[in-house]
Amino acid sequence: MTEPASAETASVRNPSARLIDGKAFAANLTQTIAHEVRAFHDRHQVTPGLAVVLVGNDPASEVYVRNKALQTHRAGMRSFMHMLPETTSQAELLALIGRLNHDPEIHGILVQLPLPAGLDPVAITNAIHPDKDVDGLGEVNAGRLALGQPGIVPCTPLGCLMLLKSELGDLRGLHAVIIGASNLVGRPMARLLLAEGCTVTVAHIDTRDTAALARQGDILVVATGCHGLVRGDWIKPGAAVIDVGITRISLPSGKTRLVGDVAFDEAVTRAGRITPVPGGVGPMTIACLLNNTLAAARRIVGGAG
Amino acid sequence: MTEPASAETASVRNPSARLIDGKAFAANLTQTIAHEVRAFHDRHQVTPGLAVVLVGNDPASEVYVRNKALQTHRAGMRSFMHMLPETTSQAELLALIGRLNHDPEIHGILVQLPLPAGLDPVAITNAIHPDKDVDGLGEVNAGRLALGQPGIVPCTPLGCLMLLKSELGDLRGLHAVIIGASNLVGRPMARLLLAEGCTVTVAHIDTRDTAALARQGDILVVATGCHGLVRGDWIKPGAAVIDVGITRISLPSGKTRLVGDVAFDEAVTRAGRITPVPGGVGPMTIACLLNNTLAAARRIVGGAG
Repeated sequence: MTEPASAETASVRNPSARLIDGKAFAANLTQTIAHEVRAFHDRHQVTPGLAVVLVGNDPASEVYVRNKALQTHRAGMRSFMHMLPETTSQAELLALIGRLNHDPEIHGILVQLPLPAGLDPVAITNAIHPDKDVDGLGEVNAGRLALGQPGIVPCTPLGCLMLLKSELGDLRGLHAVIIGASNLVGRPMARLLLAEGCTVTVAHIDTRDTAALARQGDILVVATGCHGLVRGDWIKPGAAVIDVGITRISLPSGKTRLVGDVAFDEAVTRAGRITPVPGGVGPMTIACLLNNTLAAARRIVGGAG
Repeated sequence: MTEPASAETASVRNPSARLIDGKAFAANLTQTIAHEVRAFHDRHQVTPGLAVVLVGNDPASEVYVRNKALQTHRAGMRSFMHMLPETTSQAELLALIGRLNHDPEIHGILVQLPLPAGLDPVAITNAIHPDKDVDGLGEVNAGRLALGQPGIVPCTPLGCLMLLKSELGDLRGLHAVIIGASNLVGRPMARLLLAEGCTVTVAHIDTRDTAALARQGDILVVATGCHGLVRGDWIKPGAAVIDVGITRISLPSGKTRLVGDVAFDEAVTRAGRITPVPGGVGPMTIACLLNNTLAAARRIVGGAG
């Protein structure tokens, strides 16, 4: 019953979409990875290691980096934190990346973005060795994904793809509409879904009738950072909706709430499946970082297990 | 009057599309490049040099390679041909590419595809230094294009883009539908048009209703190798149609004729603008190779002119 051709009927029978539980999926994936990390160590006497580099004192970045380190450690991997002052020069940062590239204990390197002004994020991202670029944001991994060659896929779109395949099975021939064309989500998502055999449309800030395009999507991925942008009538009945947006809004009560780019209460009556915010795509990102770090260690060590 | 919103009216007034004369455009571009090659030499005492490598005796490849060498020479550049036997090993070919990568007289390197069985086209294409990869087919240039960073763009989609911008001006907000998802044309074309601000749809062999999608395109780029695939009623009235296909068919008379992927006689009554076959996209490919070689020489020599 994962065939979207019949999903419209299904949504008439059940006017509320099935929730895609990213939190549970991510927890399962993390548990599987922890198990595989132990097996990898038993086989190769090597523990996968992830180096996370943070420059400056952005409070949000500090939270992200701490979370990544903690989950890496919990999955049984080694976690190395490099927290550098705001005054770090480009040359110093490149020198650190150079050392990490050659360090046999490090299989993944992640430089937390955004970087302070004066540091060139493109040059720094590209300085990470492609085999250790576990964020998949460097030019070589972007090229490998674009060309359909094996490489490291950015964590958030990889997480979205895992959820979609788990819900829908084979995606071949489905029309995927992606709203948002960032290098972090929209564009790599397009390349991934094309590789899965989807017909792919990318809409963005310059698109003229985004609602009409969105309504064509058997799959609708929204990553704009514009909360509540996608209304219920933008959604093809029965579609699988992946909401990557996450914004904290203030309520009249003075409390705050996390919301996505999709108007959830409307969308849930039209979609066949939908990710909630929070608890949908968000938890998948770190799980995919762990996934990519283990995969990198496997490639670097050269074994299959 | 390049605004497609009004193009439907225009096509009623004029039921025959304006032909996009790629042959004339390419001749002009080649002439401009020849002029700039002389100016570049006057400024830097360097003549741009292109190395073309052919392995084996595929007759079609021999024709392509000879044409490329001839046109390079005519544009005032140095042309170096390396014609290797079918028995060439991967190691020998990689060694040659290594020498060309380090040769200061060479600014562009092109390995003619397809390669004989036993040679890995991915490894060989990626062995070309990204700054000399004038076909733009290696992973680094694919990544740069995917990320919107400066790099070398594959010749055929670059030629298509030049024609479209020359005909339509600013492409921002237009819906571009691309039929065909190859690494040579369709996929890089999608990345290029997205970078120009188009909404982009990529359709391919697994797409369910290609005709309905095609009819949404203000721009329709067809690169399938399936001659006559796109019928007149697949075309949005007034659209700009770029036909990349080129197939030689036999006529009842025993003669042969070159035809494209678009049923030209039908399309010409609906489209606003259309490339003929031959004389449309075809001549642009070599002109863009010369363009890329000059641009590579400029980057390598480090000057602006």
